Amino acid sequence: MTITITAFERSPDGGKGLARDTRVRWALEEMGQPYEVRFLSSAGMAAPEHLAIHPFGQIPTYEDGSLSLFETGSIVFHLAERHAGLLPTERDARARAITWMFAALNTVEPPVFELTNARVFEADKPWSEARLPLVKDRVRARLDRLSAHLGVADWLDGAFSAGDLLMVSVLLRLRMSGILDEYQDLAAYVARGEARPAYARAFAAQFAVNAPSL
Amino acid sequence: MTITITAFERSPDGGKGLARDTRVRWALEEMGQPYEVRFLSSAGMAAPEHLAIHPFGQIPTYEDGSLSLFETGSIVFHLAERHAGLLPTERDARARAITWMFAALNTVEPPVFELTNARVFEADKPWSEARLPLVKDRVRARLDRLSAHLGVADWLDGAFSAGDLLMVSVLLRLRMSGILDEYQDLAAYVARGEARPAYARAFAAQFAVNAPSL
Repeated sequence: MTITITAFERSPDGGKGLARDTRVRWALEEMGQPYEVRFLSSAGMAAPEHLAIHPFGQIPTYEDGSLSLFETGSIVFHLAERHAGLLPTERDARARAITWMFAALNTVEPPVFELTNARVFEADKPWSEARLPLVKDRVRARLDRLSAHLGVADWLDGAFSAGDLLMVSVLLRLRMSGILDEYQDLAAYVARGEARPAYARAFAAQFAVNAPSL
Repeated sequence: MTITITAFERSPDGGKGLARDTRVRWALEEMGQPYEVRFLSSAGMAAPEHLAIHPFGQIPTYEDGSLSLFETGSIVFHLAERHAGLLPTERDARARAITWMFAALNTVEPPVFELTNARVFEADKPWSEARLPLVKDRVRARLDRLSAHLGVADWLDGAFSAGDLLMVSVLLRLRMSGILDEYQDLAAYVARGEARPAYARAFAAQFAVNAPSL
């Protein structure tokens, strides 16, 4: 059965790997699963046939025979359940790795995403400059704790897992703001993720589509 | 084995059921699982022994023998995997229910939570009034799509699932803002969730701790 995902025809970040299809590509590469990509324009994302598989009109989606899914966390989890390499098999360790998936998406990503909103989509608002320190401090409140937890470990809980895949992907969104560099341990953690061959392949694949032509 | 969760000693909402322990209590009640609650003060949430089981110093947590978990989504999923009633058994339907869990927490909750930030924690800021319409429109962008997906169905995908449990819990946070009432179908969806006997038991249990004494 062919796996098909969707991605932006032109990613808003111009190929920096921050669009969420990179997360799914990374998971597929960790497992050595081949996949195809259907590219969508803004109009395509709002079209009824796309809304039928992604009610919120976003990317990525995942199609595999009779099954179609949306939500990056759900797609990564679905893959991790079916192929070795992204979730431990021992019961408690598996539950803790899944906990880190949710922590990346529901505890760390919301303030990170809000910082992007503040820096990019509210940059022209009269409150932009005055409000930014407050938004950054909400991110730091999470990173302080994450850094304390990580300590000198390579990954969040034992071996690399789907929890690390999502957490590294979320933290990558902070690089442009400079905040990641305030935490040397977290910057090194992100670098360990980027150094994985599967990440490099995922990044290269999305970059090939989105890089500005020379 | 006794299940123990943590909750606020005094919930910031004064018993309206919006603290996240209500979500875990609801899941436990749907399954008829007894549980105990350890109540935490602000100081208790920042104490080393709590940070050892919740790196971000929040509630709820979940302890069951050798296993301790944090993140509401992860705890609800852990319970749903082990007891009947919150996840379908058929493969594709199960994956779609899990998708709705992630959609509730990573697509719908972030703008909902940001509205609480704007209404409560930035209420005294000079930009508060001018910025609020933009924050509300981000919530509406999600609710428009959610409403279109729900249509005339009772639940998001077939029978009631952990996806509905989390989505109803997230939407409940909108009631005070008045936005939920703009969507009659979603308000009715939330009311269907609240009408479940398991929700009523979970709400009553947290209310008993947090209601103002007369």
